Amino acid sequence: MPELRRGATNHRWVIVAPERGRRPSDFEQRGTELNDQVPDNCPFCAGNEDQTPSELYRSPSPDGTGWAVRVIPNKFPALQTYPDLGRESVDGFYDRMHGVGTHEVVIETPDHCSEFPALDEAQGLRIVDTYIQRLKTLMENPWFRYVLLFKNHGKEAGASLLHPHSQIIATPIVPQEVRDSLNIAKAYYEQKERCLFCDIMLAELRGGERIVEDANGFVTWAPYDARFPFELVIYPKRHSHDFTTMTAEERVGLARTLIRTTRRLKTLLGNVPYNFVLKTTPNPVARPGKPGYWSTLPYDYHWRIAILPRLTRVAGFEWGTGFYINPMPPEQAAAYLRDVEISEVS
Amino acid sequence: MPELRRGATNHRWVIVAPERGRRPSDFEQRGTELNDQVPDNCPFCAGNEDQTPSELYRSPSPDGTGWAVRVIPNKFPALQTYPDLGRESVDGFYDRMHGVGTHEVVIETPDHCSEFPALDEAQGLRIVDTYIQRLKTLMENPWFRYVLLFKNHGKEAGASLLHPHSQIIATPIVPQEVRDSLNIAKAYYEQKERCLFCDIMLAELRGGERIVEDANGFVTWAPYDARFPFELVIYPKRHSHDFTTMTAEERVGLARTLIRTTRRLKTLLGNVPYNFVLKTTPNPVARPGKPGYWSTLPYDYHWRIAILPRLTRVAGFEWGTGFYINPMPPEQAAAYLRDVEISEVS
Repeated sequence: MPELRRGATNHRWVIVAPERGRRPSDFEQRGTELNDQVPDNCPFCAGNEDQTPSELYRSPSPDGTGWAVRVIPNKFPALQTYPDLGRESVDGFYDRMHGVGTHEVVIETPDHCSEFPALDEAQGLRIVDTYIQRLKTLMENPWFRYVLLFKNHGKEAGASLLHPHSQIIATPIVPQEVRDSLNIAKAYYEQKERCLFCDIMLAELRGGERIVEDANGFVTWAPYDARFPFELVIYPKRHSHDFTTMTAEERVGLARTLIRTTRRLKTLLGNVPYNFVLKTTPNPVARPGKPGYWSTLPYDYHWRIAILPRLTRVAGFEWGTGFYINPMPPEQAAAYLRDVEISEVS
Repeated sequence: MPELRRGATNHRWVIVAPERGRRPSDFEQRGTELNDQVPDNCPFCAGNEDQTPSELYRSPSPDGTGWAVRVIPNKFPALQTYPDLGRESVDGFYDRMHGVGTHEVVIETPDHCSEFPALDEAQGLRIVDTYIQRLKTLMENPWFRYVLLFKNHGKEAGASLLHPHSQIIATPIVPQEVRDSLNIAKAYYEQKERCLFCDIMLAELRGGERIVEDANGFVTWAPYDARFPFELVIYPKRHSHDFTTMTAEERVGLARTLIRTTRRLKTLLGNVPYNFVLKTTPNPVARPGKPGYWSTLPYDYHWRIAILPRLTRVAGFEWGTGFYINPMPPEQAAAYLRDVEISEVS
């Protein structure tokens, strides 16, 4: 059964989610090439719906005969439903609780090979709408203090299936890194009465050297302290702390921006493995002041998406210290990505 | 020129160290198989000493004709010598300083293929003594606030050369993760007047289910909040905050423990890629109370080594939140490693 654990020498929670019957030798056999997977035996392809756990949500296909986007439970969920949190102390030092939460898969298209750069605006919008729909639903559950949306593209980025998909995990804790940035943004707001992220975005737009694109209501740039080559962030220009409150126009804008940005990466770097991660407000159902819950005012946080291409390997130095070495200055990465010619999103 | 950068939405420093003339397409060509490297053109092999930058230190070979361990500057250093720190604010939000520091390589043996599990006690001891010697020397420089010793074994763990080697990086900052654990240990000491790490070690020994080995003055176990399958820590049983103050007996004990532990991993998991990372006191030359420096009392910190096998891929979820999923419970990992039969260290 999945379990959440926290040690005594740092504040980091870890999910221990044993996969049934896995033995030491099984870890070595993980090197399946994703390209070996063909649509015939892909559980995410149209026609193979009976190979997946039962559907949680679908966005119908334009002709009404099938689906365009589909959400299913993860077959090997990192977190599950439990009747209670089961918080307790272990050995006097450690903290544990049940692995309470959910783990869902968003199948982005019925087509085995249509990754983000190949999508049209309409399909991009269906995916964005699906993300919002699922986040809204999960945030109705007050036990889920944080909902994480992310995508692993390519084996090097952690994907175990080639078929285009992203994942949503709801957790009973707000992860430490999210709490740190919430605290920093809150302190800034208290001092300035302005959103830290809005201020950074305006400074980046004024400077310009790290900007990749300012279009469709979103600004895409290579952050000053990028940990990875070609790391990017996408901020909505309109201040908003909550991804699920996007306007209709912004949803279209985000779809276009995701397609355009992944097109840039693909044109410049080929089929590069990458992760994208949404950062948004902790679940607003949680009441401010209630212990363990994090109040976000609508003013002092700003939702955004990080895109992390996996071109370098993270090594001992990084694991030991959280201190990263990036061989590609973000100014140079932005210049390369700005200058790439991409086709218009249809 | 390498540069240290810190953004505005977290406290993490990043080293931006451009490799000269590297273009986007160069990142894709990194997949050289380490096994293709043969001793003939290996710069770390005996006989090829002229292919490396000039030697910083050597431990002579037992017959006195050559070297047994050799320390050289890294050919592509992440950090360099500068006349000043060059700290400044950038765009009103960011912090930068020159990439001040050093980056050294410890060639662990003249033999291309003698990894840790294959070493005898004498060679293991020469390596441990070399580590201590270099750390002591680097800690004479008050600009180096932290010295990090680590090893990347195998391509998946970030190694770019097959020949057995480890690395030492001295930095002008104490990395955030180290500061966090220093703060936690300090708060514990203030409350209890006992070392947090000693207390955890004793509790682990009492419980026993996560212990791999209690021998030669060191305790090896799988931590309660292990992020990775078969992750291990090695603690000296005698309380000490500073790796460089090991007794003669402890140096032998550590050599034996490193050989025995890597033997266990290799016997159980094959030639598994792994990182090991030393955690020790920040540079004690730094005076307590001086801003930006971290005082460690001899009482409230405990040096230790973490071993992180690279069997799973870190994916979007982890990068986005610092929240890890571990499919192998540490209790089970410890049982497997405890039961492995290994040959005696000669």
